[in-house]
Amino acid sequence: MLESVEKQMRECLAELNDASVMKLFEKLPKGKRLRAKLILKIANNHPDAVLLAAIVELIHAASLLHDDVIDDALTRRGADSLNALYGNKSAIMFGDILYSQGFAKLTSLPDRVAQTVSKAVALLSLGELEDVELSKSFNKDRSKYEKMIYHKTASLIEASAKAAAILAKKPEENFALYGKNLGLAFQIVDDILDITQDSKTLGKPAMHDFKEGKTTLPYLYMYEAVNSEDKERLISYFGKDLTQDEISWIRQKMDETKALDKAISDAKRLGNEAIKAIKSLEVQGLDDVVRQMIERDF
Amino acid sequence: MLESVEKQMRECLAELNDASVMKLFEKLPKGKRLRAKLILKIANNHPDAVLLAAIVELIHAASLLHDDVIDDALTRRGADSLNALYGNKSAIMFGDILYSQGFAKLTSLPDRVAQTVSKAVALLSLGELEDVELSKSFNKDRSKYEKMIYHKTASLIEASAKAAAILAKKPEENFALYGKNLGLAFQIVDDILDITQDSKTLGKPAMHDFKEGKTTLPYLYMYEAVNSEDKERLISYFGKDLTQDEISWIRQKMDETKALDKAISDAKRLGNEAIKAIKSLEVQGLDDVVRQMIERDF
Repeated sequence: MLESVEKQMRECLAELNDASVMKLFEKLPKGKRLRAKLILKIANNHPDAVLLAAIVELIHAASLLHDDVIDDALTRRGADSLNALYGNKSAIMFGDILYSQGFAKLTSLPDRVAQTVSKAVALLSLGELEDVELSKSFNKDRSKYEKMIYHKTASLIEASAKAAAILAKKPEENFALYGKNLGLAFQIVDDILDITQDSKTLGKPAMHDFKEGKTTLPYLYMYEAVNSEDKERLISYFGKDLTQDEISWIRQKMDETKALDKAISDAKRLGNEAIKAIKSLEVQGLDDVVRQMIERDF
Repeated sequence: MLESVEKQMRECLAELNDASVMKLFEKLPKGKRLRAKLILKIANNHPDAVLLAAIVELIHAASLLHDDVIDDALTRRGADSLNALYGNKSAIMFGDILYSQGFAKLTSLPDRVAQTVSKAVALLSLGELEDVELSKSFNKDRSKYEKMIYHKTASLIEASAKAAAILAKKPEENFALYGKNLGLAFQIVDDILDITQDSKTLGKPAMHDFKEGKTTLPYLYMYEAVNSEDKERLISYFGKDLTQDEISWIRQKMDETKALDKAISDAKRLGNEAIKAIKSLEVQGLDDVVRQMIERDF
């Protein structure tokens, strides 16, 4: 079924009748297609399910393209990023094409589906701006982080699950809550792995987020728990290339303060809340999506 | 009436409930609001006219923001550009917010209106990519230029006029043709002014387009008309900072070959075709929009 989503994505773009667009599309990494999987599982045999999944994946790909330009990321999932291959200009404009063609196709779906997805994309863009703004100085405020990851990551996953439920006439609020909690857990897990995994597994330097100005949940928990001297020391490391000693110090303090454990426990709690939201609704495979994400070596 | 469009734009963004978004919005130059004016004139008293105008102007502002990032433009209409003030990251993301919030509001309008505008935005983005691609080497192909300016500039003006006509139940194809020809003429005039106006009037260096790799219509006409030696000389000037002598040589050749006259005559012909398309439909002021643009000192 995921293959039919790839095909549909290609067909949506082929309507624009432009060779460069198709060439750029083939260079995009495919990723896990988490959002498409959820939509297909929830709305499975609905005739619009594949189109909805393709639209959401086009929009998600657009957001990653602009993300990579913003982060000056030269790789994405271990391969050269599109901005590294073709320059930032092409990457920005190709992102705009993916967004706008996704939106154009969205207008052929039922109004409430289109409204659900398009509202989420506005929140997603807002989350990206919040991420940029928060990265300008050391953010100490956990509620700002939580709001930002809801906007940046969870809103589109929430909307995917909800829109699929609207199509399939299933209880939409349950699926929305499932998607929201899954999305929040997903981003927290991603932020934890940036700290705990080695650079080879990550395909980027470890603790890259912190260097980029992103004070993710484990840093926030650590900051809250340490004394004022250590608070200042952590702030002094903000946004710079860290030495091995500095990295070790942060890891040690995160262990001492159980900052990582708290973040892992948050991710698991959110994952379990996602499962709880759709318990008894008997949609095959949705529990596994959550479990595969939260039951892993951190 | 244009004030109600500004107010509506602000209200659309206020829904996102974010202070940074409102701050960035206030920094945007207002521009001529050509698209909003057309929509108000065509759909005048329709209850959705102001919302449609606001949406189109949000989308247009988004495309200008991404344009400025791509062109490394530090000014826009004589003022500091948003990317110069707040950095490319904020400008890209704020552009995404304007696009996506524009699209989100579009889903509240009738389906055919939403489809007309959203299709045009996909073409607009495609035109931006074509512009980037064409700028990579000296483009000799007039048909590629024409296609690109249709996509980049005319498609959204065409869609604005058509969507307003759909709302007002007026003959939509006539208004679409009016908008398309107006848009093409508008871009050609803009391209001519880059050559004929001094840098003070333009707010940027003269012949800036050519330096940026944009072989606009007068360059194409000149290239077609000169001998092979002069063709090579023109190509050798492509994309570089021009000396005063080099600028004078191009201007002289454009005069000799009547390249500028041909481009001006194309703009006027398109303008007159725009007027002809809506002749007898008696919408006040639409002729004047065209005339103010094409009857000027080039």
